[in-house]
Amino acid sequence: VAYNEFKKSKAEMKEIIQLKNYMAEPITPLSQLQKNQDDMKTQMELLIMRIQAEFCRALEKEEDEEAKFKVDRWTRKEGGGGITCVLQDGRVFEKAGVNISVVSGKLPPPAVQQMKSRGKNFENKELPFFAAGVSAVIHPRNPMVPTIHFNYRYFEVKDKNEVHWWFGGGTDLTPYYLNEEDARHFHLTLKHACDSHDPTYYERFKKWCDDYFTITHRGERRGVGGIFFDDIDSPDQQSAFEFVTSCAEAVIPSYIPLVKRHKDDGYGYRERQWQLLRRGRYVEFNLIYDRGTKFGLHTPEARYESILMSLPLNAKWEYMHEPEPNSPEEKLMKVLKEPRDWLNIEKTKSTAS
Amino acid sequence: VAYNEFKKSKAEMKEIIQLKNYMAEPITPLSQLQKNQDDMKTQMELLIMRIQAEFCRALEKEEDEEAKFKVDRWTRKEGGGGITCVLQDGRVFEKAGVNISVVSGKLPPPAVQQMKSRGKNFENKELPFFAAGVSAVIHPRNPMVPTIHFNYRYFEVKDKNEVHWWFGGGTDLTPYYLNEEDARHFHLTLKHACDSHDPTYYERFKKWCDDYFTITHRGERRGVGGIFFDDIDSPDQQSAFEFVTSCAEAVIPSYIPLVKRHKDDGYGYRERQWQLLRRGRYVEFNLIYDRGTKFGLHTPEARYESILMSLPLNAKWEYMHEPEPNSPEEKLMKVLKEPRDWLNIEKTKSTAS
Repeated sequence: VAYNEFKKSKAEMKEIIQLKNYMAEPITPLSQLQKNQDDMKTQMELLIMRIQAEFCRALEKEEDEEAKFKVDRWTRKEGGGGITCVLQDGRVFEKAGVNISVVSGKLPPPAVQQMKSRGKNFENKELPFFAAGVSAVIHPRNPMVPTIHFNYRYFEVKDKNEVHWWFGGGTDLTPYYLNEEDARHFHLTLKHACDSHDPTYYERFKKWCDDYFTITHRGERRGVGGIFFDDIDSPDQQSAFEFVTSCAEAVIPSYIPLVKRHKDDGYGYRERQWQLLRRGRYVEFNLIYDRGTKFGLHTPEARYESILMSLPLNAKWEYMHEPEPNSPEEKLMKVLKEPRDWLNIEKTKSTAS
Repeated sequence: VAYNEFKKSKAEMKEIIQLKNYMAEPITPLSQLQKNQDDMKTQMELLIMRIQAEFCRALEKEEDEEAKFKVDRWTRKEGGGGITCVLQDGRVFEKAGVNISVVSGKLPPPAVQQMKSRGKNFENKELPFFAAGVSAVIHPRNPMVPTIHFNYRYFEVKDKNEVHWWFGGGTDLTPYYLNEEDARHFHLTLKHACDSHDPTYYERFKKWCDDYFTITHRGERRGVGGIFFDDIDSPDQQSAFEFVTSCAEAVIPSYIPLVKRHKDDGYGYRERQWQLLRRGRYVEFNLIYDRGTKFGLHTPEARYESILMSLPLNAKWEYMHEPEPNSPEEKLMKVLKEPRDWLNIEKTKSTAS
C-alpha cells in the first residue's frame, strides 16, 4: 500500500519528496523530515502533501486546459504554515479549495478546555501541540455535480512530558439534486476504505457524519453524508494512520466518477437558482456550526482566507423558499431531513441474523 | 410628539390602532392593549407596529408600483409572535426585511446566564420575560445605495417579583462605495435624535456601534457605523422610551434621502461584483458575531426565516480578493479598517476647550 513507500532510506525519501510533484515545498524543512522520517508527524505531513497534489491534479484533469490551481504557501509566526490551493471560476469548478496545514506552538487554555470537553484529560494551561491536516471543499458549477468536502488531520499534545496523539477526519457529499446511484457509489467507496480496517467503522462513522453535518435551526442535514470521526487513537498509531490513509485515498475514486458523469449534464435557470439557495445553507452550516471554522476563526492570527476558502463563490438567501411538492428539489429535501441507509446495512443485518 | 398620542382614552386608542394602517393585526389582542394602555409593554408594541408600517410604506414609495411587502403574521406556541414583512427582488430593493416580534415566556437558564454576564443580577433559573422589538435590514440593488440595519427592543424580566426592564437598539449604515456626504448626513440625523435626550449619548453610542459591528477575523467594521446601545434603563422608563422613539423615528430621515439620491445612479459589472463580495462580509458578521442572530437561532422553535431575513439575496466569496490601490473600493476599506469621526466631535471639543 502507498504509505509504505515513505518508510524507506534517506536517499529514497529525498527522491520521493522531489518526484512526488507536490503543490509546493513541504512546510517542515526537508532536512528535518529526513531526520525524523519514522515520526508520525513526518508521515502525516508527507501523506497530506501527496493527497493534496493528487486531488488537485485529478480535479485539473476535469477542467479546461487553462484552469489551474493557484498555490499559496504561507507560514505562521508561531510555527509551521500551510499550502492553500484554490481554483476559482473554472468551467467545471466554480470554486475548489484544497488546503494543507502543518502547525505547532502552544495551545491556549480555551483550546485546551475544548479538548478536555471532548474527553481528553489535560491540565488547563498552555500546552505544546502539533497539528497537520488536509481539507478540501469543491463547489462545481453544474448543479448536477455534488459538492464534496473532506478533512483528515493528526494532533499531538504534550502534557507533563507525555505525548497524546489522535486522528480525525471525514468525507461527505452535498448534492443539489439527488442521484441515488451516485450516493450509493460514494458511500460504498468509503465503506470499502473503512472495512479493511474495522468492520464496525463505516456504520459508526456514517451515523457520526449525519449527526455532525446538521443545520440545527432548519432541522436538515447539509448533504447525504459520508463518514466523520474524531479522537481516533486505536488500535495503535500506525494502524490508525493506515486507516486515515485509506480514507484519504478513497476521496478520488468516490468523487471524480461523479464529476465525469455529470459535468456536462444539461441544466437551466431553475437548477442554478436551487443550487445557489443550497449554497446559502452550506454557508450557514460552515459559519454557525462547523467546529473547524469556528476554532480557526477564533485563533489569533488565523489565516482566514484559507479557512473561508470553503465558502462558495456565489450563494443566495430567499425568504421562505419552499420547493414545489413532488419536485426534484423536494426529493432532495426529504433525504436531508431524514438520512437514508444507502447501503442497506440495517436490512442486511436483519437478514443475516 | 408622536408617542403621546397613544396615551389617550380607550375609544381614541381603538381608533388609532385601526387608523394607523399597521402591516397586520397587533400580536397582543386589542382588548388587552386597551386594558393596559399605560403599560410600557403596550406602548412599545404600538411603537414598533407604527415604525414597521411607516418604514415599509416609505420603502414601497421608492419602489415600482407592483413591488410590495409580503406580510407574515406568526405566533409562538410559548407566547406571543411577530409580523415579518419582506420585499424581495424589487427594482430598487433586492431584499428588504422589516420584522417585529412581541414574545413572552420563560427565559431558559443559558439565556439568563447571558443576561447576567451583561451586568444583570438574576438568579440562574427559569425566569418570566417579555421582549418586544423591531428590526430591519434593507439591501438595495444599486451598489451606490447603502444597506441599512436598525433594531429597537424592550425587555422585561421578572425575578423574585421584581420587574427588571431595559431598552436596547441602534441604527447603522453599510455602504458599498463611500460617499462622505451621505455618511455625515446619516450620522448627523442620528446625533440630532440623541442630543435632545442626552448630549453624551451620540458620542458614546457611536463608539459602541463601531466596536460592536466588527468582523474580528478580518479586522474590519461591517460599515460606517451609526449608533448602538444596550441595557438602557435610565433616567426613567418613560424618558428611555422617548429616547428610543426618537431614534426609531430618525430611521426614515437618515436613510430615505440616500435611497432617493442614488437609486438611479449608474453602475456596472465591477460595482455589482464588489457589492456582492461586501454582502459576503455582511453574512460573515451576521452568522458569526451578531448576538441577536446567535441568540435567536439557538432558541428552540426559533422562527429562523424571520431571523435570517437579514441575509442578502445574493452574496459572493472570492479567495484573496484585494481592492486595487487607490480605487474607490480601497477608499471604503480604509474607513472600515479605521472608523472615522464623521461629525468632527473630537475637533469641536478641542476647539471649545
